Amino acid sequence: MNQKLELIKSSIKSIPNYPKEGIIFRDITSLLEVPEAFQATVDIIVEQFKNKGITKVVGTESRGFIFGAPIALALELPFVLVRKPNKLPREVLSQSYELEYGQDTLEIHTDAIVEGDNVLIIDDLLATGGTVEATVKLINKLGGKVEHAAFVIGLPALNGVERLEKMGVTSTTLVDFDGH
Amino acid sequence: MNQKLELIKSSIKSIPNYPKEGIIFRDITSLLEVPEAFQATVDIIVEQFKNKGITKVVGTESRGFIFGAPIALALELPFVLVRKPNKLPREVLSQSYELEYGQDTLEIHTDAIVEGDNVLIIDDLLATGGTVEATVKLINKLGGKVEHAAFVIGLPALNGVERLEKMGVTSTTLVDFDGH
Repeated sequence: MNQKLELIKSSIKSIPNYPKEGIIFRDITSLLEVPEAFQATVDIIVEQFKNKGITKVVGTESRGFIFGAPIALALELPFVLVRKPNKLPREVLSQSYELEYGQDTLEIHTDAIVEGDNVLIIDDLLATGGTVEATVKLINKLGGKVEHAAFVIGLPALNGVERLEKMGVTSTTLVDFDGH
Repeated sequence: MNQKLELIKSSIKSIPNYPKEGIIFRDITSLLEVPEAFQATVDIIVEQFKNKGITKVVGTESRGFIFGAPIALALELPFVLVRKPNKLPREVLSQSYELEYGQDTLEIHTDAIVEGDNVLIIDDLLATGGTVEATVKLINKLGGKVEHAAFVIGLPALNGVERLEKMGVTSTTLVDFDGH
């Protein structure tokens, strides 16, 4: 692992038994508080996707906004929000998805993606890939394609990369952690 | 108003009667989708605060994250999150505040601000100033001071500027709109 990735990984705090027993929560707030680490995170993703024909960057509520916004700015591309229900003020498309217990819904403005868009999805964490799958469905229904999704943290044990691969989406995770 | 501010203002869509009758909602998602307008928003705030002795940038959940993150990066300062309850994984300080109907609570990690910090608060919108007031209280209780808060949109009719002035906070709003 190179020096920048080591800085990024060492800036992420691990909180045992949060939000519940047996889970180790990977906390990106500590990364945001180290300017060089946060900037390196943005730089690595921007470098990787600047010549990939991307037309829009989509960030998922709400930690995806934190990384997606500076990445979209650096790529000089429109930044589109995918949000929890009843947060977007104009006409939306909705997509439900399964959680461990129950389900949740994501929404996107119907005019935010147009036919032919090539979308890069940004989020902080790739776990099971459920929210990303729902986000891909929203983008596809509006005529956009998703070839790439990028995450700061990957949890390979939860097989999110494989789940997204089945949808034709290649995942990039900057740093991977064991466990859930 | 100069050209950049005109571009910013014209990129914000106005949605009548959202979220309820009589309210005109000012929608920053359309601004985020115009890269030059989003970049200009960040640039103007960064230019204004780069030599003000700021030590940390605080963004308020969740639209404050979208503007706060690139502003903190450009200022090369730590970015600190103020979030809704039960979102931050480590030890937090909480502050309740009044809404039009009922109340809400904001939280900050207790180690995110230290004695002597000079904090710039970023949010998308200054309305009554209630969430900013709660955010200032959190920062003050941890030993930090807040001299400046910056917003993309101001609603002068709701007197947020005056409310923050009473707390010693000077507000910057890039574009102002009439009404609520």
